[in-house]
Amino acid sequence: MTGPVQSIERAAAILRLLAGGPRRLGLGEVAASLGLAKGTAHGILRTLQHVDFVEQDATTGKYQLGAALLHLGTSYLDVNELRSRSINWADALAARSGEAVRLGTPLEGMVLVVHHVFRPDDTLQTLDVGALLPLHASSLGKVLLAYGTATVDSAVESGLDAYTRHTLVTQEQLTRALAEVRETGWAVEVQEMSMGEAGLAVPIRGHGGLVVGAIGLSGPVERICDSQGRPRPGLITLIREAARAISRDLGAARW
Amino acid sequence: MTGPVQSIERAAAILRLLAGGPRRLGLGEVAASLGLAKGTAHGILRTLQHVDFVEQDATTGKYQLGAALLHLGTSYLDVNELRSRSINWADALAARSGEAVRLGTPLEGMVLVVHHVFRPDDTLQTLDVGALLPLHASSLGKVLLAYGTATVDSAVESGLDAYTRHTLVTQEQLTRALAEVRETGWAVEVQEMSMGEAGLAVPIRGHGGLVVGAIGLSGPVERICDSQGRPRPGLITLIREAARAISRDLGAARW
Repeated sequence: MTGPVQSIERAAAILRLLAGGPRRLGLGEVAASLGLAKGTAHGILRTLQHVDFVEQDATTGKYQLGAALLHLGTSYLDVNELRSRSINWADALAARSGEAVRLGTPLEGMVLVVHHVFRPDDTLQTLDVGALLPLHASSLGKVLLAYGTATVDSAVESGLDAYTRHTLVTQEQLTRALAEVRETGWAVEVQEMSMGEAGLAVPIRGHGGLVVGAIGLSGPVERICDSQGRPRPGLITLIREAARAISRDLGAARW
Repeated sequence: MTGPVQSIERAAAILRLLAGGPRRLGLGEVAASLGLAKGTAHGILRTLQHVDFVEQDATTGKYQLGAALLHLGTSYLDVNELRSRSINWADALAARSGEAVRLGTPLEGMVLVVHHVFRPDDTLQTLDVGALLPLHASSLGKVLLAYGTATVDSAVESGLDAYTRHTLVTQEQLTRALAEVRETGWAVEVQEMSMGEAGLAVPIRGHGGLVVGAIGLSGPVERICDSQGRPRPGLITLIREAARAISRDLGAARW
């Protein structure tokens, strides 16, 4: 049994660093951020550049993510079973509910959006596929936390940042909310990430009934919630039906 | 000056292998495809799994691409200057021409689609962002080849596959077509990749006038071409105007 390959771990850390923050970094910044000697960081960066995972700006000499990653990322989508089994159901859910639909799986203490169907109207919307949402401040994330698909520890480690005054920022608030999710079978997020916006999500189960992801509706708070600020029962029914259909396709027994 | 880091090159080769072909591979298949000892391949795969670049199927033990790549891929789009400078112009071009718009840059002997605006009607279309098109059988690719942004050698190495009976499959045919592209300033592809489909593309220039990418229209052949099978002059004018605007935004002097 060999241990992990250090240079690959370091290369992954550099790519992650370039994917966050200001996006273009000089050699010194990369080396300092990861506590590497400049020569070591340079060797890794040159190799990453050689395989098109990193590009170097000709004028500034700074590094940024490279084109090969885009193709690998979209190839990941092609093999993601949760996504491929969900596409038709997600389209139908968006059509029936009139709302935007998103699917999420956990990644690095956050929620990775693996599919997004726009709200079926002519409003300007931007594609969220590939975006990372906070676990504690999204309905998708609360579902993943409530059913142990993502751990509360990983959410705490990513930081319980206050996006609005409604965000759950303590572990106690979060624990209470997650118990409620398990009780009702759905999670709601009302203006906790962005004022005026709300989301509603339920779990998707795979083989053996394990929760493998979450499917949710999101949009203006007045569309998702009724006048008492509770999610509209009709939407809960629609989203549950979609989740049940996807779960069955993924091999979950009826539950 | 240190050489490239071998384990990172091998890791990149494994990811590329998983992105092509049947998509899910066992340890033996990975090792054999890359000429590695099984132990070596296993150490790299375990490390890639540890950083979420690779996932292992619980039932079959086979490997596939991992979720972290999706986020890296979409982060690449955020920093891609050609794309960010083009978005508004591409939207306007699609609206004015009534056709689908795509932007391409070279990657590994192919054309990587970095932006795609759907044809502005209600037809079913699938997003091509992240897809790889053949250099010799796409109008975007012919532009990149004609202006040296991609090399004919790399196209030949990727293989001059015959997608239809109209595909240019010899280096002589291709060289002749590329001379014509340089002469007219635009490239056309008529049913060379897919019967019934055509494409039209022009170069985008960056700082110093160098061609950094291509922008193109594509769709049913009867929409892109007139009854003589020549691209419609009105479309050539529109696409040239868009390319000129983007090139100026990218720092190209007027040419």
